[in-house]
Amino acid sequence: MLNTTSVKTIAVLTGGGDAPGLNAVIRAVVRSALGRGLAVWGIRNGFGGMVENQMCELTDVSVAGILPRGGTMLGTTNRDNPFNYPVSRNGQVVYENMSGQALANLRQADIQALVVIGGDGTLKIGAEFYQLGLPVVAVPKTIDNDIPGTERTFGFDTAVGVAAEALDRLHTTAESHHRVMVLEVMGRYAGWIALHAGMAGGADCVLIPEIPFNLDSVIAKIKERQERGRQFSLVVIAEGAYPRGGEISVGRIVEGSQEKIRLGGAGEKLAREIERLAGIESRCTVLGHVQRGGTPTAFDRVLSTRYGVAAVDCVLAGAFGNMVALQKNRIIRVPIADIAGKAHNVTADDELLRAGRAIGICFGD
Amino acid sequence: MLNTTSVKTIAVLTGGGDAPGLNAVIRAVVRSALGRGLAVWGIRNGFGGMVENQMCELTDVSVAGILPRGGTMLGTTNRDNPFNYPVSRNGQVVYENMSGQALANLRQADIQALVVIGGDGTLKIGAEFYQLGLPVVAVPKTIDNDIPGTERTFGFDTAVGVAAEALDRLHTTAESHHRVMVLEVMGRYAGWIALHAGMAGGADCVLIPEIPFNLDSVIAKIKERQERGRQFSLVVIAEGAYPRGGEISVGRIVEGSQEKIRLGGAGEKLAREIERLAGIESRCTVLGHVQRGGTPTAFDRVLSTRYGVAAVDCVLAGAFGNMVALQKNRIIRVPIADIAGKAHNVTADDELLRAGRAIGICFGD
Amino acid sequence: MLNTTSVKTIAVLTGGGDAPGLNAVIRAVVRSALGRGLAVWGIRNGFGGMVENQMCELTDVSVAGILPRGGTMLGTTNRDNPFNYPVSRNGQVVYENMSGQALANLRQADIQALVVIGGDGTLKIGAEFYQLGLPVVAVPKTIDNDIPGTERTFGFDTAVGVAAEALDRLHTTAESHHRVMVLEVMGRYAGWIALHAGMAGGADCVLIPEIPFNLDSVIAKIKERQERGRQFSLVVIAEGAYPRGGEISVGRIVEGSQEKIRLGGAGEKLAREIERLAGIESRCTVLGHVQRGGTPTAFDRVLSTRYGVAAVDCVLAGAFGNMVALQKNRIIRVPIADIAGKAHNVTADDELLRAGRAIGICFGD
Amino acid sequence: MLNTTSVKTIAVLTGGGDAPGLNAVIRAVVRSALGRGLAVWGIRNGFGGMVENQMCELTDVSVAGILPRGGTMLGTTNRDNPFNYPVSRNGQVVYENMSGQALANLRQADIQALVVIGGDGTLKIGAEFYQLGLPVVAVPKTIDNDIPGTERTFGFDTAVGVAAEALDRLHTTAESHHRVMVLEVMGRYAGWIALHAGMAGGADCVLIPEIPFNLDSVIAKIKERQERGRQFSLVVIAEGAYPRGGEISVGRIVEGSQEKIRLGGAGEKLAREIERLAGIESRCTVLGHVQRGGTPTAFDRVLSTRYGVAAVDCVLAGAFGNMVALQKNRIIRVPIADIAGKAHNVTADDELLRAGRAIGICFGD
Repeated sequence: MLNTTSVKTIAVLTGGGDAPGLNAVIRAVVRSALGRGLAVWGIRNGFGGMVENQMCELTDVSVAGILPRGGTMLGTTNRDNPFNYPVSRNGQVVYENMSGQALANLRQADIQALVVIGGDGTLKIGAEFYQLGLPVVAVPKTIDNDIPGTERTFGFDTAVGVAAEALDRLHTTAESHHRVMVLEVMGRYAGWIALHAGMAGGADCVLIPEIPFNLDSVIAKIKERQERGRQFSLVVIAEGAYPRGGEISVGRIVEGSQEKIRLGGAGEKLAREIERLAGIESRCTVLGHVQRGGTPTAFDRVLSTRYGVAAVDCVLAGAFGNMVALQKNRIIRVPIADIAGKAHNVTADDELLRAGRAIGICFGD
Repeated sequence: MLNTTSVKTIAVLTGGGDAPGLNAVIRAVVRSALGRGLAVWGIRNGFGGMVENQMCELTDVSVAGILPRGGTMLGTTNRDNPFNYPVSRNGQVVYENMSGQALANLRQADIQALVVIGGDGTLKIGAEFYQLGLPVVAVPKTIDNDIPGTERTFGFDTAVGVAAEALDRLHTTAESHHRVMVLEVMGRYAGWIALHAGMAGGADCVLIPEIPFNLDSVIAKIKERQERGRQFSLVVIAEGAYPRGGEISVGRIVEGSQEKIRLGGAGEKLAREIERLAGIESRCTVLGHVQRGGTPTAFDRVLSTRYGVAAVDCVLAGAFGNMVALQKNRIIRVPIADIAGKAHNVTADDELLRAGRAIGICFGD
Repeated sequence: MLNTTSVKTIAVLTGGGDAPGLNAVIRAVVRSALGRGLAVWGIRNGFGGMVENQMCELTDVSVAGILPRGGTMLGTTNRDNPFNYPVSRNGQVVYENMSGQALANLRQADIQALVVIGGDGTLKIGAEFYQLGLPVVAVPKTIDNDIPGTERTFGFDTAVGVAAEALDRLHTTAESHHRVMVLEVMGRYAGWIALHAGMAGGADCVLIPEIPFNLDSVIAKIKERQERGRQFSLVVIAEGAYPRGGEISVGRIVEGSQEKIRLGGAGEKLAREIERLAGIESRCTVLGHVQRGGTPTAFDRVLSTRYGVAAVDCVLAGAFGNMVALQKNRIIRVPIADIAGKAHNVTADDELLRAGRAIGICFGD
Repeated sequence: MLNTTSVKTIAVLTGGGDAPGLNAVIRAVVRSALGRGLAVWGIRNGFGGMVENQMCELTDVSVAGILPRGGTMLGTTNRDNPFNYPVSRNGQVVYENMSGQALANLRQADIQALVVIGGDGTLKIGAEFYQLGLPVVAVPKTIDNDIPGTERTFGFDTAVGVAAEALDRLHTTAESHHRVMVLEVMGRYAGWIALHAGMAGGADCVLIPEIPFNLDSVIAKIKERQERGRQFSLVVIAEGAYPRGGEISVGRIVEGSQEKIRLGGAGEKLAREIERLAGIESRCTVLGHVQRGGTPTAFDRVLSTRYGVAAVDCVLAGAFGNMVALQKNRIIRVPIADIAGKAHNVTADDELLRAGRAIGICFGD
């Protein structure tokens, strides 16, 4: 691909929670950019590093050996927003718009374009910088697979794999002890991890945020299994799943808006309810951060590499303001503006849901 | 899905080489068929078991616990073809058409439809039975991902994962010893495993059957790395890859037709040539059957489950003569007849090839 | 080994929490007993099944394929004690001594000796039956490695492996986010899992029940790392670890005796304290039951097999009342009576503790 | 531990084939040395780097993050011997004694003691330097576990784990296809890997160099299984195993001394013989270098760390000329001189052999 722009130097940053594959994207950006005559700078710790001018040039050596490693060699943070940035004024922390400083730092290093790897929060900031005239290309990142415009985000396959392996382990202990094992997985707003891992790990019930669950259905499923001589059950619950009509007692507390949702303990509470109502020993495991760390699966490494190369393709083609995405198994470009404020959730007609029902999974409805 | 046919009992068999996910397909076929009022029989050891009447009914209990297991609970074989079946006549083995016997066995058990899980050889036999009037539905199976009409076959993701993990292991030993490590992976006619695993495992060269390779390019790549201080290289070669213009010396011997290709030793020969020509210690590892056994990845378990459910959907809809397939991330149906005699290979414009080149992988051309 | 006893038929049961390797022990007991002319019966669900007469003969086929599987094919439970067994009398559950019934069931099936696989609770019951004249041989089982008389219990290596892999995953996310990651692992009374996993996973602090910890030391360690530019730390805490002088606020509540300890939340509380006192984002992961399920490591499979064979050796030699054990890398026999009421804990002079200190691990003292 | 010597600076090198855990030893040496006031230098590429003066100081930062990584950060080689070192004289390569140069390089960097991590070849060179007055401490390293004086070398547990996992994968494909699967594992002179992996992976036959095998016994075992309805078998063969009385046809060719043994193809030849003699499809997999690369198991990381700390203990105590070793589960010191020219092999009375026989494994005798 020829460079149809005047861009000679690009920068790359990672923002938001980490996901397996971040390093693979960075490596692909660096290697494909260098291979086509561009220089590449890395910005440390997300947008905060852009404000603080924490940048250094990346070479082939910088990215040697990082492909199989989890995390991000650039560091990341869920917090810093240059448009509302914490600064110390007279001994007090106040929040100011530091985007001008951030842009000045890029200019000073002669950086003409920015590759932003991140989730919705990060992409939103990227879109704002694009509005201000910075040539931005985005790479979608979220464990939860809930970024619209793309069928698959990197890191998701790894998270599903970790959760499915946990289910394999819980399966044998559940069966030996005649217990219900509840596994709480990531997914505040979207149930993709729970749905895929539950299907891969042979779960009997899968509870997701998109389907407020009926506890009676869950209990009925467990009892029906007992009657058939299956003295144990496996339940997967997304952290953001909650009972129908009872948004408060189990799962999450909605305080007005999606942004303010407080989560925690969905799995633990469910296990206690099952024990109480079904009269069968129940235990809960919360996988937590184990899902987002560590070496990515082969699938995620390939997808990350494709994304990284495609992001540099966008730069060379001058196709700024876009996010690279996977649709129908092909890498395409989607305007970042088109995905702002939208969600990618499991829908009622999702083929996986239907397949799950066909093999007898209870979704709590 | 309502049963729009008069089918009350179906049978399922697995044929050809095994692949991780076979049991997951069988489980999904059984569970979704039972859930919709069908009875299911399992035929042992592929089409041979249909001739020999090795069948038994499958229940929920039959498939309990098989989801994570490699292999096939039904057994399989690469050999038996009812249309040309070895029988003992007067102490001698002769080959006869036993398809009538096979069909009679199904009739006797009151089986009205057959789900065939297999690769090209198995699908061809399935198509012949369909021509004879047997209602057949096919599920594509091959480690190599080279069945046309579907973007992905189950088992492929697992094979790629095993190969990529082997590359991770070889990477550290190659780097410590300043060696070239050659990994030979499966893929007689198609380079999908080599391409995906090579990209996932950070290979420097990837040699596939679709691109007869130029040994000079491989040597040049290795030397160029040495000059940059990278004293080791990783090379992935598909078992069916061969050098340009030298089909005989390395890789395979073509004896007139694709069917008669003799393979063996592609990786070993390559390692010796690299050692001789580049003057750097080289070692070869042949993964072999380790790629096709063992527990499937979460991805393959989900895909297998989707296929199994979709196959029963075909039965209920009376959509016989079809293979279920994945296209654009959706499960669809493809007439088995349409795929006969066709291949699914890496093409010159494949996005993965281009991405690989962009990050500096040498494909030997 | 010749059979020096008149034993012709033995039984085997598994009791207490499950541990990876239980099936491997059962398989070794069955195969080595059959190979030496004994018949073997399996008792289901621990000592409860002995009372309820849930037994069946085990053959070579019964144990085919179980070596790599987690859990126990015989089922288990932490509860049933024949000497104090729940029975329904006039609609009420009362506890009675049903040991006579249990012994009668064995006699009726012509079983002359019993192999008991279990932890301290199970071994205690086994010892009582031995006192009553039943020829008993014991195999030590506990994830926690805290059974006295043996250097290593099976399942421990697997649990350590699972915990160390979790640390590997948490490492990359901690480093990318500049966080403290706390991993809570099993170990109510003994810190072996925390000690081994912490050392294997590169933990900076390891907190174990044997060393009531000083929170200030932990905070100091984390801050010292920050000053050296290491913006993250990994902390492993055994579920039974608690702060010095503050047995109540974090960790466990002692209500008079070891038996009544209530645990829960040690890791979560610690993470919150670290965040408050060190001013660095902290997150906790509780591995829970994932540590005890799933396929055993090669090490545990070998150890389990050795134990199973050695248990049958005891039977043939008439060496009843013994537990097989590992001491100085050899399998020996220890009288069950000798280990009753004793513990196997990390001691102040343990070489691993000293090695840990030498490489800079903080043990909170 | 107090420094009872005048040593202020030590060096560390790794020699011979790499093994999982090398980096963990280096890390433990560096961290425990720094923690006790010593400086540490790393010598690159084994003894060759000592001649060529390829050395640099190692700090806490040098070893950050290397614990889970395979290979050796210092590089290694199987070749260079300073006492017989290849030098170019008048355009020709001649071999000269360069040990004086090597010692001079250490003196110049003010290095007073050397930690050598390696196998028998490396230890022998270390012993020679010790004879010349260099304070040397050795750490035993070999995948094969065949260094005398120590019960366990690091890397062995990882190699066994890789081989056992391969057996798990081959198991399912063997069972599905009714085949014999032969797995060739490392072990030229010692059968430890084959013995442990075979027991862990449920092998039916295990062939090791210590027991020249009788092919008839192997065939008989396979046929006996077939008669019991087990239509498949798993065979593990060490690369150095050979048939009784037929040292030439399969396995290795003895040309006068152990040093000159030529190996190769033991597994492949065995598979062909089995197919011919037992009339059952047989396939061979050669694991090769995959066994020695990649991340070490938790067990190996802990053992490596213990060894590294103990080596520095030796330095501080002035206990030079020793190898650290594991005996009866404790770290001890063994004079390097005591182990020269000795071997550590499986002996006829090894408990594992007896346990293997008890559960029905055929060792070919």
